[in-house]
This record gives sequence, C-alpha cells and structure tokens, in this order.
Amino acid sequence: MKLLEDRIRTEGIVKSGNILRVDSFLNHQMDAALFREMAKEWKRRFAGAEVTKILTIEASGIGLACIAAEEFGCRAVFAKKTAGNNMDADVYATKITSFTKGRVYDVVVSKRFLTKDDRVLILDDFLANGCALLGLMDLVNQAGATLVGCGIAIEKGFQDGGRKIRDMGVKLESLAILESMEGGMITFREND
Amino acid sequence: MKLLEDRIRTEGIVKSGNILRVDSFLNHQMDAALFREMAKEWKRRFAGAEVTKILTIEASGIGLACIAAEEFGCRAVFAKKTAGNNMDADVYATKITSFTKGRVYDVVVSKRFLTKDDRVLILDDFLANGCALLGLMDLVNQAGATLVGCGIAIEKGFQDGGRKIRDMGVKLESLAILESMEGGMITFREND
Repeated sequence: MKLLEDRIRTEGIVKSGNILRVDSFLNHQMDAALFREMAKEWKRRFAGAEVTKILTIEASGIGLACIAAEEFGCRAVFAKKTAGNNMDADVYATKITSFTKGRVYDVVVSKRFLTKDDRVLILDDFLANGCALLGLMDLVNQAGATLVGCGIAIEKGFQDGGRKIRDMGVKLESLAILESMEGGMITFREND
Repeated sequence: MKLLEDRIRTEGIVKSGNILRVDSFLNHQMDAALFREMAKEWKRRFAGAEVTKILTIEASGIGLACIAAEEFGCRAVFAKKTAGNNMDADVYATKITSFTKGRVYDVVVSKRFLTKDDRVLILDDFLANGCALLGLMDLVNQAGATLVGCGIAIEKGFQDGGRKIRDMGVKLESLAILESMEGGMITFREND
C-alpha cells in the first residue's frame, strides 16, 4: 500500500537490531486518517469475507482495530495481556512471547466476545516472528470461531512469521512488507 | 449522554467493590459506532477549543482517542505504561497508581509528540479517584502544552476524582456520571 510505504519512508526510523520505529503515526502517536485508509484497504482485500469480529491485542493494535471495525460494520475486541482483577474469569487464554519486551505474556479474551458463530479478522500493527498472530489464532481456535484471515500494517519480510502463517494456509494481508532495512535503507517487497 | 447511559443500563454489570463492568462495548469488546457518537458529543462540548492533540493512556482509552482524533481532525497519542526497549529515551514520565490492578505504573510519552504548541484534550474510559487523569495532566504540564480539558466516558460520581479535577478549574466532560450503584441499581447524575 503506497500511502503506508511512503509514510514509513519519510517518518520511519531504523534502529539497530532490525527495529523500525514508526511511533510518529502508528504505535505511539496515531494518525487516524491514515488508519482509515488502511482499514479501507483491508476491507478491499477481505471483500465478501463477512467478518463479524475484529480481534487484536493490546495496545498498539487497538486503534487500527477500532477504525477497521467501523469499516467492516462489526465489533472489535482486544486480547488483554494479563487477567486484571475485574476481568471475566471465563476466558480463553494463551501465552505470547514478546521479543521486543523480552518477556512472556498471558493473553486472554472473554468467552462472551469470541464465539463459534464469529468470522474473525485478526489485525495487528507488526508481524515479525509471528508469535502474537499465532497466539491470537489459538484464541480463535479455542472459541471454535472461523478465522477469515490476518491483516498486518507492517510485516518484517526478512523474519519468518509471514512465511509460517501463509504456510498454514491463512490469508495474510500485510499493507507494507519490509524486504530489508540494512544500513538504514528501507526497501519493500512488491505487495498489492 | 442518553445513548451511553442506556448502554450502561442494559449491558453494564455491577460487581462487588463498586466495579462496573462494561467490557461488552467499552474496554474489552469495543463498539466503534458508539465511540463515534461519543466522539461527536465531546466535539460538541469542546466546540471552538482548537484541539491539536488527543492524549490518552493505554489500553482502554486508545480506541476512543483514535475515533475522537478523526472527529477533531488531529493526532492522538497514548501514554505508555512502561518504557519498552524500543521506546524513545527522550520522554516525559510520571507515575500513576492503578487501584483496579493494585500497582504503580511508570507512564511515559515521547517529547516529540507533546509540545508547548499543543492544545491537548485528555480522554479516558473511566474516572474514579482521578489518578490517571492527574498523571496525564502532569505530562501535559511537563511539555508546557495547553490543557483544553478532559473527556471521560464513565465517571464514578461517588468517588472524588471528578471533584478534584473540577476544583482545579479544569473543564471536565464526562458523558455518563454514576451517582450510585448500590444494590446493583445504577443511577446517573443529571449531566448534559
């Protein structure tokens, strides 16, 4: 998606360790107008999929999921990273390893908001090794819901998450796929 | 705001310890269409305020902030609860006590996204004792930005956060103010 690639080129900051910082528009400060265009693009790529639920994980996916839910005309739900005191006891739970934060999270979603009748589109801001997506897919599976596919803002094409997910036969639509960031030079994989 | 009060009445679940669970539409599952109406109401109540930035805190405020940012035609930024490995070192920081989770968080926002030229509207889902709002106000103050006011979805009118904030001369617009939840019976304070 050219609009997103252009923003990554102009505002993205490449840090050591293959980290791309896009916090000026994606995951700290948020450009909701850009999110709207991204949501429309996912709607186009998942046309006819009859999505009934958008699933994401806190925190960076929430804004995208919320705007996309308006486009798809459904509810969004975000998986929570720990069971807080006022969290429903009746939850689906899984574990997700965050390499960025260097820890394992217990991730839960209430059974009331993910059911066997749901057709779920999973959305998230980044895809690298795929741990977050696999965890969310596990929650969808536990609910007996139908996974329509996954939408990602920025996929790190040089890590193996995308290949793993696609090899499972899952429809994965990343709006920008980074081919390389070597020497701070960002190149994208053809993807439209 | 009648639309929100009606949803609280029909879907809210009162738990012991004055906890109101509204996770079917506000802070776990999210009804973006409702968020849109709430954002329009904040826009009405802050008409002419020339808001340049919406500030919230992860995670529950993010969806509201994102939709509201579209209504106000500005960017949203969410304060982060800890400084992750790929967080900008150059941050404003404060501490916020969460009574729901029973812990103190270090909360940060990048100095790049909150400046002295910003006119900031703080948004959040709940207001009880006011700790989160006071922390976010501290971040606005550190940035030398102008605080336009605070917008809250649900204020617990029987706790003292609202009074504290209003006594400071801050324009605080809560879309629903709970007067009481005694015996599981929800009553609202007049507020339009």
